[in-house]
Amino acid sequence: MHFTSEKRLDDGVLEREFTLGEVPGILWVPEAASASAPVPLILLGHPTLGLRTMYPRLVARARHSAAEGFAAATIELPGSGDRPSWPALDRARADLRRAMQAGEPVSDEMVDALILPLVDKAVPEWQDTLDAVMSRPEIGGPVGYSGGVMSIGIRLAVVEPRIVAAVLFAGSLVPRVMFEEARQVTVPLHVLLQWDDEGNDRQAALDLFDAFGSKEKSLHANMGGHTGVPQSAGDAAAHFFTRHLKREAGPLDRQQTELMPAAYRSSRTGADLT
Amino acid sequence: MHFTSEKRLDDGVLEREFTLGEVPGILWVPEAASASAPVPLILLGHPTLGLRTMYPRLVARARHSAAEGFAAATIELPGSGDRPSWPALDRARADLRRAMQAGEPVSDEMVDALILPLVDKAVPEWQDTLDAVMSRPEIGGPVGYSGGVMSIGIRLAVVEPRIVAAVLFAGSLVPRVMFEEARQVTVPLHVLLQWDDEGNDRQAALDLFDAFGSKEKSLHANMGGHTGVPQSAGDAAAHFFTRHLKREAGPLDRQQTELMPAAYRSSRTGADLT
Repeated sequence: MHFTSEKRLDDGVLEREFTLGEVPGILWVPEAASASAPVPLILLGHPTLGLRTMYPRLVARARHSAAEGFAAATIELPGSGDRPSWPALDRARADLRRAMQAGEPVSDEMVDALILPLVDKAVPEWQDTLDAVMSRPEIGGPVGYSGGVMSIGIRLAVVEPRIVAAVLFAGSLVPRVMFEEARQVTVPLHVLLQWDDEGNDRQAALDLFDAFGSKEKSLHANMGGHTGVPQSAGDAAAHFFTRHLKREAGPLDRQQTELMPAAYRSSRTGADLT
Repeated sequence: MHFTSEKRLDDGVLEREFTLGEVPGILWVPEAASASAPVPLILLGHPTLGLRTMYPRLVARARHSAAEGFAAATIELPGSGDRPSWPALDRARADLRRAMQAGEPVSDEMVDALILPLVDKAVPEWQDTLDAVMSRPEIGGPVGYSGGVMSIGIRLAVVEPRIVAAVLFAGSLVPRVMFEEARQVTVPLHVLLQWDDEGNDRQAALDLFDAFGSKEKSLHANMGGHTGVPQSAGDAAAHFFTRHLKREAGPLDRQQTELMPAAYRSSRTGADLT
């Protein structure tokens, strides 16, 4: 892991760009983190638009993760940004765009051609990144994965035991074969779905949620299209990671633990027909 | 509104039982509330099991509402608890229980016979309660409705303009005709669904969520059966009311407002095919 730049953000988050082999990435660590008080890590997934394009959204998510006491890391996806172009991936994406813009049906083959090679190449790179980042003394404990390409999140959740919780965004194209992998996912999941996502098959998203093998999984459907995720949904996702990545509960969490089960867990009853 | 008992709970919540005509109810008001600083009200819906049976859950929800700065009120449903028995309703419930226990299909007629008379009688009583409670100087501002019989929540949200936000629990039996009323609901909705609710038709619940006319509505599906609502779901419901019933945002809310939209609202993009 070779650091190529270092910058202290105004809210005391240390942002360092790095390269790991040919893969560029960014690591954000809150000031408070140290060898004596290592912080958990959240891997920030993102679509295949390139790190430079995604930077404003990624740094905002990293700052929020830092405010919650988490480090965050992301890497460039294969064939994206400054990485060598990947003609096969570009062709698959162009074919898919053409079909969608022409209003033609998107075939399973088209989805497989775009997503499956991307997952096969990207997931080991995320795992290498995890090896490198977790070897740093200021970072330790459980790992979360958030967002980005749904199928990469699914594969990572299945093959990477260090990931103990994941926030996934429904709506990206998911190959049929990934539904089988979804059944093998066992970590707690927080799934976001945009109910009116123009680029999304709602039923497929519901079927995928149903397929996940996790005992603890929740689906959070909000109104609006692809880019309309409300801030409250992001807030809930942050609470999800705080619940699953933090060893100790804060006062609010304790208050919830005392009050909410009595208040809500038992607020429905099997005897309740109405 | 005639108060029949008054008790100060250890966390400083004033609990008063009252009767409004023949209808018994309970009002919970946080100590902080006064004529100079009136607090918003949440109506606590509940199933038809009687206030005495429901009291432990209701007081827990009321304490949590008070901790968030809200008053809470509930009333006995017609034919329940100490109110005069309602033979027609008892018969309809018995028919429904018999069919369910025999594993027979529950007909629309059976559901209508139980729910529609209950809604027609209960909703005006909730509105009378609102008139009485809102006339008190220590209570003011917008009103929320939470839980209980889904169809009562739907009807109230349609006919009662003082209700500005509602938390509804999917899973109770909803007559077909209520789907039409659901289209007329426009207030922000936070809908809880137990994904594996044994007594619940999941597709019907999803269809009902889709039918609601509200521009702002979110569905929160959690694993587990009828009584398995996790504490995090109650927590999210509390945040929903705080967002919609509180005039000012607290520090946390401000932080979210600054960080979350950048972090999440724009974390997906129409150009994102993967």
